[in-house]
Amino acid sequence: MTVKEPAAPESTFAATLAALRDALGDDAVRVGDAIGERPMTDWTRHGPTRPAALLLPRTTEQVARALMICNDARQPVVPQGGMTGLAGGSIPRAGDIALSLDRLAGVEEIDSAAATITLRAGTTLQTAQEAAAQAGFELALDLGARGSCQIGGNLATNAGGNRVIQSGTARDQVLGLEVVLANGAVLSSLNKMVKNNTGYDLKHWFIGSEGTLGVITRAVLKLQPQRASRHTALVALNGYEQAVALLRRLSTRFGNDIGAFEIMWPDFFDFGVKLTGTRSPFAEPHPLYALIEHASFDADDDGARFSNALTDALDESAIRDAVIAQSIADTRALWAIRECTAEFPVKLDPINFDVSLPIGEIGAFVDRCRVALDRAWPGNESYFFGHIGDSNLHVTVDGRSVPGVDHHDVYALVYDMLAPLRGSVSAEHGIGLLKREFLPVSRSAEELAAMRAIKHALDPNGILNPGKLF
Amino acid sequence: MTVKEPAAPESTFAATLAALRDALGDDAVRVGDAIGERPMTDWTRHGPTRPAALLLPRTTEQVARALMICNDARQPVVPQGGMTGLAGGSIPRAGDIALSLDRLAGVEEIDSAAATITLRAGTTLQTAQEAAAQAGFELALDLGARGSCQIGGNLATNAGGNRVIQSGTARDQVLGLEVVLANGAVLSSLNKMVKNNTGYDLKHWFIGSEGTLGVITRAVLKLQPQRASRHTALVALNGYEQAVALLRRLSTRFGNDIGAFEIMWPDFFDFGVKLTGTRSPFAEPHPLYALIEHASFDADDDGARFSNALTDALDESAIRDAVIAQSIADTRALWAIRECTAEFPVKLDPINFDVSLPIGEIGAFVDRCRVALDRAWPGNESYFFGHIGDSNLHVTVDGRSVPGVDHHDVYALVYDMLAPLRGSVSAEHGIGLLKREFLPVSRSAEELAAMRAIKHALDPNGILNPGKLF
Repeated sequence: MTVKEPAAPESTFAATLAALRDALGDDAVRVGDAIGERPMTDWTRHGPTRPAALLLPRTTEQVARALMICNDARQPVVPQGGMTGLAGGSIPRAGDIALSLDRLAGVEEIDSAAATITLRAGTTLQTAQEAAAQAGFELALDLGARGSCQIGGNLATNAGGNRVIQSGTARDQVLGLEVVLANGAVLSSLNKMVKNNTGYDLKHWFIGSEGTLGVITRAVLKLQPQRASRHTALVALNGYEQAVALLRRLSTRFGNDIGAFEIMWPDFFDFGVKLTGTRSPFAEPHPLYALIEHASFDADDDGARFSNALTDALDESAIRDAVIAQSIADTRALWAIRECTAEFPVKLDPINFDVSLPIGEIGAFVDRCRVALDRAWPGNESYFFGHIGDSNLHVTVDGRSVPGVDHHDVYALVYDMLAPLRGSVSAEHGIGLLKREFLPVSRSAEELAAMRAIKHALDPNGILNPGKLF
Repeated sequence: MTVKEPAAPESTFAATLAALRDALGDDAVRVGDAIGERPMTDWTRHGPTRPAALLLPRTTEQVARALMICNDARQPVVPQGGMTGLAGGSIPRAGDIALSLDRLAGVEEIDSAAATITLRAGTTLQTAQEAAAQAGFELALDLGARGSCQIGGNLATNAGGNRVIQSGTARDQVLGLEVVLANGAVLSSLNKMVKNNTGYDLKHWFIGSEGTLGVITRAVLKLQPQRASRHTALVALNGYEQAVALLRRLSTRFGNDIGAFEIMWPDFFDFGVKLTGTRSPFAEPHPLYALIEHASFDADDDGARFSNALTDALDESAIRDAVIAQSIADTRALWAIRECTAEFPVKLDPINFDVSLPIGEIGAFVDRCRVALDRAWPGNESYFFGHIGDSNLHVTVDGRSVPGVDHHDVYALVYDMLAPLRGSVSAEHGIGLLKREFLPVSRSAEELAAMRAIKHALDPNGILNPGKLF
């Protein structure tokens, strides 16, 4: 069943396919047109490249057998989830075999005593969220792609999303993980315990490794109680320092009941108001805006404490103004401004940045970045906004406002400014295919050498997602 | 400065020492009586063994030079912090060189905007806590050894302690880490950002690796706001299922404002009452007791919501009785019963277990464990208690009640019962020297093979803490 003798490339591949069909069944090994469009690219639309074959295993054991065969044949494998990535981490190269987790899907168990959910990797995030809600819990992980993205991909990329300030990233939700290594060995560490200090905590090697160290097949995630009341406010601020002070002030008063702290610079805010066809709730413009959510476990919380905290801040000149949503419609209208980014791919030719910086340095970075962009490309239209509580800044430069400029030059300008601040070129989207060139901005030569040593130890033949991350 | 030629053992060691003195200075390299007692054992008092030499580097660079020299000479090194470990992970073997982090100590920075503290590894936990408090924050990590244990050791062992139910283990506090590898390479990943997805998250390889993969030299830890009000209750329950239901009920109402949920079985509770010379606050005995803390960020919280929640539970027969501390003295008296364990080493010959199990399985495990202990050694005196919210159960068998019995047999009996439940032989203390034999109870052959592969990749000569963990 395994191919051990070296052979001419074509006959080797044919033998590999035959062995895979033998192991997985004919219907789980597709080639040519039968592969379809979906495995060819992710949400970046880069590539698109048809893989040499598509595998659709149904069990962990089938994943293990498939990898064993590919490893023996030195056949590169690109693991694929919901194909919603934004860094090209799951786009095949010509000749790669795509390993889809689509069929290895479903909720295996909800343990109400332990407050855990055990999921197969191909389960969509939304399915997992709904199962958790039905059992009276909440899965803290949430992101825009919830209907398509899969748990395996969420963990392989350490997805961020909407609730990081409150509950951390995908990594922070994981208690146990099952992973298949390149050689087919199954590491089934489906731990449900909060405390477990028995040797190296294997799950952390694989979370965020973008499919280069192993294929995630199952996971045990933490569940938390459902938050019972939510209140939203839009706050006007006189600048970035005031924003940081407000974040600390509210955190001190409410701990992690502060569930969102989204900062919008005026360019972004005005553009968002225009795009959504609404009006600013403030009579005059302000230097900075914060969209803040307070979410409490207390079902009787009427929002008075949150609104009092903002009134106190106003009385002490710690903010310039505030609007508190009084209805669901109000809340939606405020969030619509922030979520105008959904229209960016349609209304702009977006050159996107997803960087992170120490929270205190983001304001000065934005100022310097704007000056540098204006000096390089006068008339550029750029929008600054971010999840400040997560140290995450987004910048979108409209490519249409810098005609003839190579996008690569825009990337280089921003990332070069990030390097001396020890900033990260990828806060939440990963490195994948598209940011490999810029990884050394955020990682030292020693760190990269250590990563390569680990990669070699776990995947000596380099079959897992080659060409990604490094 | 490095020793590359193979030589007779003694002359090799002399040359290594000479190179170390050259690199670190004479006062940082001690041998013989100058080593003193402290580096010879930890709080288990096992060993004690005098190391061949004691190194006292002052900087990360000196740690790097020392490891480079020892690596070239194939000289085993045991990293040492505050020597408060409970698994023998820092006890030298004859011939080991001890590398103390004592002099690489101090708070480097508190970043109030990012809410982070940057610490050198040799800083005691208490020093770090006090620095955080002075800046108006709280360091979530807390454990009994706070005055002696060091941050480097806390992270190398992924320490647990008193606030895990609320804020997680030591690992969960870490944003950035600086580590020196066996070959002297410095991985300086002193990240302050919540989100950073740029390749493998190196810090997690080293946290909990018990000094076998690298020497931690500095760390960036998260800070959180100080909780402003605390309320404590002792609750009487009719059994373990009721305890789990109460934990879920209170979590749903208060989220992670529940700061302790300590379960005591009657044997433990009665013994604690006797040891502390107090009286039970309840008129009659009960099948199970829970000590519960509610800690809120709201300075105006008078405890009414917490006490109402317990009253509701009583009205609905979800608990048997409850006593709420009305004063600091009340609170101390309730905690004294739980903390009678501090007297165990004096009053008992304790055979201690620090295991973890899925929360829902702990009650049945305790019942079965008691039956098995009674069958094997009638008349044994054993005490069951645990941090149930953390899935952590402690069992202490009094060695005096099983005279002539090899402690190893007691370990084997309990751990053998744990294996089929996928329990952990070490919830929070680590494996070190003393639990190596039982590591396969909690880890599969595939997991152990993967751990060894990583160990070999990062420390090919096996100089870092050999004889520990594996």
